[in-house]
Parts: sequence; structure tokens; C-alpha cells
Amino acid sequence: MEEELRALLRDLDALKQRPDPAAVDRMRERVAGMVNPVGAAAARSKIKDMSAEVVDSNPYSRLMALQRMGIVDNYERIRDYSVAIVGIGGVGSVAAEMLTRCGIGRLLLYDYDTVELANMNRLFFRPDQVGMTKTDAAVQTLSGINPDVTLESYSLNITTVKGFETFLGSLKARSSDGRNTGVDLVLSCVDNYEARMVVNQACNELGQTWMESGVSEDAVSGHIQLLVPGETACFACAPPLVVASGVDERTLKREGVCAASLPTTMGVVAGLLVQNALKYLLKFGQVSPYLGYNSLKDYFPTMEMKPNPQCSNPACVQRQKEYMQSKPARDAAAKAKMDAEAAAADECPVHLDNDWNISVVDDSDTATPSILSTGAGSLPEGLVRELPTADSYQEPVAPVASGAIDDDLEELQRQLDALNAS
Amino acid sequence: MEEELRALLRDLDALKQRPDPAAVDRMRERVAGMVNPVGAAAARSKIKDMSAEVVDSNPYSRLMALQRMGIVDNYERIRDYSVAIVGIGGVGSVAAEMLTRCGIGRLLLYDYDTVELANMNRLFFRPDQVGMTKTDAAVQTLSGINPDVTLESYSLNITTVKGFETFLGSLKARSSDGRNTGVDLVLSCVDNYEARMVVNQACNELGQTWMESGVSEDAVSGHIQLLVPGETACFACAPPLVVASGVDERTLKREGVCAASLPTTMGVVAGLLVQNALKYLLKFGQVSPYLGYNSLKDYFPTMEMKPNPQCSNPACVQRQKEYMQSKPARDAAAKAKMDAEAAAADECPVHLDNDWNISVVDDSDTATPSILSTGAGSLPEGLVRELPTADSYQEPVAPVASGAIDDDLEELQRQLDALNAS
Repeated sequence: MEEELRALLRDLDALKQRPDPAAVDRMRERVAGMVNPVGAAAARSKIKDMSAEVVDSNPYSRLMALQRMGIVDNYERIRDYSVAIVGIGGVGSVAAEMLTRCGIGRLLLYDYDTVELANMNRLFFRPDQVGMTKTDAAVQTLSGINPDVTLESYSLNITTVKGFETFLGSLKARSSDGRNTGVDLVLSCVDNYEARMVVNQACNELGQTWMESGVSEDAVSGHIQLLVPGETACFACAPPLVVASGVDERTLKREGVCAASLPTTMGVVAGLLVQNALKYLLKFGQVSPYLGYNSLKDYFPTMEMKPNPQCSNPACVQRQKEYMQSKPARDAAAKAKMDAEAAAADECPVHLDNDWNISVVDDSDTATPSILSTGAGSLPEGLVRELPTADSYQEPVAPVASGAIDDDLEELQRQLDALNAS
Repeated sequence: MEEELRALLRDLDALKQRPDPAAVDRMRERVAGMVNPVGAAAARSKIKDMSAEVVDSNPYSRLMALQRMGIVDNYERIRDYSVAIVGIGGVGSVAAEMLTRCGIGRLLLYDYDTVELANMNRLFFRPDQVGMTKTDAAVQTLSGINPDVTLESYSLNITTVKGFETFLGSLKARSSDGRNTGVDLVLSCVDNYEARMVVNQACNELGQTWMESGVSEDAVSGHIQLLVPGETACFACAPPLVVASGVDERTLKREGVCAASLPTTMGVVAGLLVQNALKYLLKFGQVSPYLGYNSLKDYFPTMEMKPNPQCSNPACVQRQKEYMQSKPARDAAAKAKMDAEAAAADECPVHLDNDWNISVVDDSDTATPSILSTGAGSLPEGLVRELPTADSYQEPVAPVASGAIDDDLEELQRQLDALNAS
């Protein structure tokens, strides 16, 4: 394409010197070839309804096939969902492309950075986009790939006061076509602690489920994590051992030193992240609470993290209270569902007699409808809980009066003092 | 871009009617804007040496950082390697992009198919490439991303007699710049049994190490596998239970039915595949002999497969013989290496006294220098070996005369007859 354009420039320069109808014809042909390199329509037009028809011209046939294969009940629901992606770097840009190609309804993209040649060792951005903001470059590429996706681009820094306000507002706002209010999932693909804490704050305030991702500085490991305010640990529940204090994290980086990165590790982390986002949105498979990726050994550790009742984030503590107050209702709903399933199973046994001696085995880990198992002892061997879990928290049987909450807070303070003293 | 080009077409049509120097200026500006959207060089020029300098304009800074981080000894060696990718679909195209962005020396791309809109639910290809051959479209995109990579494109079907000859010849041929002979690794990213058997045949004949990849028809699981002729199971060593017999596999697919696919699963499989390719080529971490990906549960099974002495592929059996004949030399080299390391360790103890009570622990699984552990009992629980392993094969202590090989073959035939009779 670029060589064609350069040839066109030379032709135009020649034309400036001397009018030449033949040259104009030649240029016209050249440009037409660029618009339409193989004689077919260049980019595709919008598609109103997702079809399962198996023809080469249907961009959704391989996705709608997930229904026939019995993986997803209703794939087309993906068009009703809005996903916010914070950080359009090595992980976020690939996550955005995957969701775009899956036909997500609406994507909100946040980044304040511009594309550099130094980003070219990760997927997605192209050298000809150097200098563009990452959000603009992403919209340029993604809208060409799938015009059915509504793209909203926010070139801002969420860690500034003004940026945070816009971020929070956009997560709650109605979509431009008026179909959706708010977002269904936030994917954090940022590369620093400060930005993660800001996403955490916004999602705790909104009670917004989100997924966090990260890749190590040596480029060979990464992780994804599901965060459901009140139900799972928030990002502040288990603070890291070392954080930047009173200074900008970026100033801690030594001059002339940069983190390593690989398209492989970032591609795998983006893939695992969006796969779990699809499982969460389209309700299939099991959403992983935490999944690590150690690429040197191809080892994938998993674990669960319960919220910390002494979390330093007040919004998290508030969400934990609400989650516990709604426990009786959740338990009742779970019991009703189980009873209904048991009754249905009694009524119509599945292949009670069969020549192959196949028996139906229930391999569900837990009877609760929660995404996370709430059972104790679910940490991998060698890990112990340093802090009391939410189970040790007194569960109110009915909505408590404000006095009772105050008592709980005093009790919490006593527990915290005891921990600090020990 | 497309709108700009359409505007240009309108300008050219107008110019055809009436010469207009101002219109030529306007067109020139428009084209220059497309070549160079932000005033910087559009695509980058070739780079002679990979630099570790940390500047935004260096596309290799984040890769060269792998050396400083202690992950890779010499990253720049990647330029010496040639990788062949067979099948430029949902996995192969992403694998090609990852290796291109990593700065691989030479990529050989094989596919006979063209780009369709139905491929748009996977990464890499764009709607404006519909109708192009996948290899041409890949070269177009990849050369724009990294002009330092030598790309060789083969639009052919390797399962035809002529296609196989060209395939085999290209794997042995010298690169166009004369630097490399042959390829260092073959990545199989095809979607059918027949093509896998053809890659297997070529690699067994050449003694060429390759990696196989695959994604399930329901789009939610996949795998990668390392195949070292003679050392590990080849693709024919453990035949599948059901294969197409006497008819073209593709005719078995029902009309109007297609396999499901997801950009997530294919992105993860491509990432795991190329990560293992990088580990193999640049000698870091552990190359996985087999790694599965069950996305519904985020479960990643691993296993090892030894070659089958009764393999139906004569080239595989021949490579097995050669591998066993070279065992004494490998053992001696391994022992010499271990002795040298032990001597070095005795000479300079690492932090014998330290305030932190840190001790150095040897976590290597096996004493052999082989990529695969050759220990018995390495299959996951629940799996048993149905066929005798290579260990039950008599190991000659010295190169054997042809008579001895004939005896071995007779013994093999007896074992096979006994197995068939039982």
C-alpha cells in the first residue's frame, strides 16, 4: 500500500509540471486498486442480525456454531453487552481485537499514551500508526475489522482527578444508541499499581465486576483475576509488600532501563482474559477466580481470594456488608434451584438403562450459585490465609440497623488491634 | 483510509474533465497524509543490528531487555533462525505475527486457501483482504509490521504430490540471502488429519524437529505438542481411533455445518506454541512435550509420549533406531557436563554463609540433557501405555550391523503379532 501511495505522489508531482490525461487514468486505476485490491468490496458493511448460515461471506458463522455445538445457549446476546478496557497496550489492544471479532455490542477504550516503535514487539499496533494516540489507532483498526461494534474512545489518564471523574461517569453512562446503561464488565490491562488501584476504586464504588490482568517485568509470566466487589478480594484487600510511597511510580524506573515484553505472553494473557470474559458474559464453563501463567514451565496456578474484612478501601468493606446481608436470599434461591433440578431429574431419568454403562456424574464443586466456591481449604497446598476470612464475620440473618453495623465496625477494630499487637 | 481514497477518486474524475493545478496540490496533500498520517515516517525502515537502547523509536528494546533480565543469553540469535509455518489460519497467522514481531530471521508460510469473511472471527486477517490468498495477505501485513524478517510465501496444498515435493524441497533449501540452509523448526497449524500426517512424513524423512497445534471443533480446547523424530512419539505413533478411510476428510463434513472457532482459544494456542518455539530456539525455560488447554475449566494437562517401536511410519522407525544408536554418545556427553558442573560447584560455593538462610536447591527433574524426561511413570494419573515403550527395545552398545537390525525387525514383527493375537 505504501509503495503504491509513493508512486502516486511521484505521478502527482509530474502532473503538476504538465497536464496529462493518460497519467490521470493511470492514477485512477492505482487508487481503485488500493480501495478494492481484489475486485470485491473492501471492508464489509454492517450486519443487522447475526446469522448461523454457513457461507464464506458470513463473519459470524463460526461464532454462531458455538450454539449448535452446545457450548453457548444464545450467542447473539453478546451484542447486548458493553465492556470497558482500561489500558490499550500489549494485553488491552489484543483483548479489544478479540472482543471486536467476537461481535461484542459496545467497547469503551481508555488510554492516555501514544503508539511508539518500541511497542511493535507486541501484537496489534502497526508502524504506520506511530504517533497516534493508542485509543485512536485502536478505533481505526477495530472499526475496519468489525463495523457492527460501537467503539467509544477515551484518551485520558484515569489516575488524574479529572480523568477519574470522566472514567467513572462513562462507566455509568447510557450508550450513544441508548440501548445500554452502564457496562457489564471492566477489563483492567494497565501496567502499574496506581492505575490498578484507580480501577479498583471505581469498581468498588459502582459495585462493578471486573477482571484484572498483568504481565511480569521479565515478560515470562502473567495472570488474570476476577474481582466481584464484596464477594472476592478487591485489589486493596491484599496489599503488595512494596509499593511506591509519595512519589510517582514511573520515576522509580531507572534511566535507560525498560521492562521486557513478548507478544506470546501478552497474547496468552489477553486470550485467557477474554475467554473468561466470554464465559462470564455468555454463561458457559467456569470463570477462573485467579489464573497464573508461568511460561518457563508452562505452569498455570489457580487460587481463590476472599475479601479482607479489614480492607483499607471503605467501598470494598461496604460491598462486603451488602454481600453478606444478601446471603439468606442467595441461599434460598440456590436451594430452590437445586430442588427444582432434583425434581426434574426424578421425573425424567437420563438413560437409566444404556448399553454402554454410562452414568451421569455430578461434578459440580459447590452447591452455591456463586461464581467462586466459598468453601474453606480451597487454597493450593503451601498457602495459608494470613488474615481472617469473611466466614469469621458474624452473618446477620436480617438487614441490620445502623447500630448493629457500628457494633460490627467496633468488633472489626478490636480484631485489627489484636492482629497488630500479636 | 478508504474514505480518503474514495475522495481521491472523485478528485481524479474531476481532474479528467478539466486540468486544475490547485486540485493536484490538494490531492498531493491527501496522499501525503495517508503515507504519513502524523508527520512521522509511516512504516519503519530496515534495522541492521538489534539494539538494546531504551528509546521509543527502537522496536527491539523490549525484546533485548530479555537479556538484561537474565531470561535469554543472546536474543539477537533469533535473526539466525528460520521457521516454517504450515497452515496460515486462526493459529498459524497469529503465530506468524508473533514471530515477525519477535524479529525472527526467516519465515516460510504455507497455505492453499483464500481469506473469507467467515475467517474474521479469528485474529489477523482484515475484511479488506477477502479474496487474497492467505499467504499473500499474510506477507502484506507482516512485511508492514517488520521489514527485517525474510518472508517466503508458498500458496500450495502440501497434501498433493507436487505440493509435497515443493514443501520438502523448501524445508531443505538455502535461504534467498544464502545465510541459512534448511529450517530450524516447523510449526504445524493445520486443521485436518491428512495435512498433519503429511507434515509428520516430511519431518520424519528430514529428521526435522516440529511442533504440532490444534483446536477442537467446539472451539473451547486446544493443544500443542513437540515432536522430535526418533526421540518422541511421531504423529503416526499413536493413531487416532477414527480416521477418514478412502475418502477425502472434507467430504465427511455435513452440508451447512461448520466447526466453531474463537479468537481467544486460537490466540492462546498460538501464544503457547510460539512461546515454546522461542524457548526451543533461544534455549530458555522448559519446552513442553505436550500441553493441553481446556478453556471451560482453565485446565492445562501435560504429558509425554515416547515413540512407538511398531509405528506404521518407516521413517519414524528409522529415526528411532538412529536415536538409540547415539545413546552412548549422549550419555557420555551428559555425564561430562554434569561432572564439569559439579566440579565448578565444588570450586565456588554460592553464598555458603548468608544472613537470609537462602539455600540453592537443584530443581531439575532429570539428569539427562534431553528436552524430554525419559523417566518411566511420567504419564498423568489414569493414563496407561497401551504399547511397549522405547525402553523395552534392546539398546545396542555400539553401532549395529545390518543383520542385527533385521533381527530387531523380526523381533518387532513377533511382538506385533502377539499384540494382534491377544
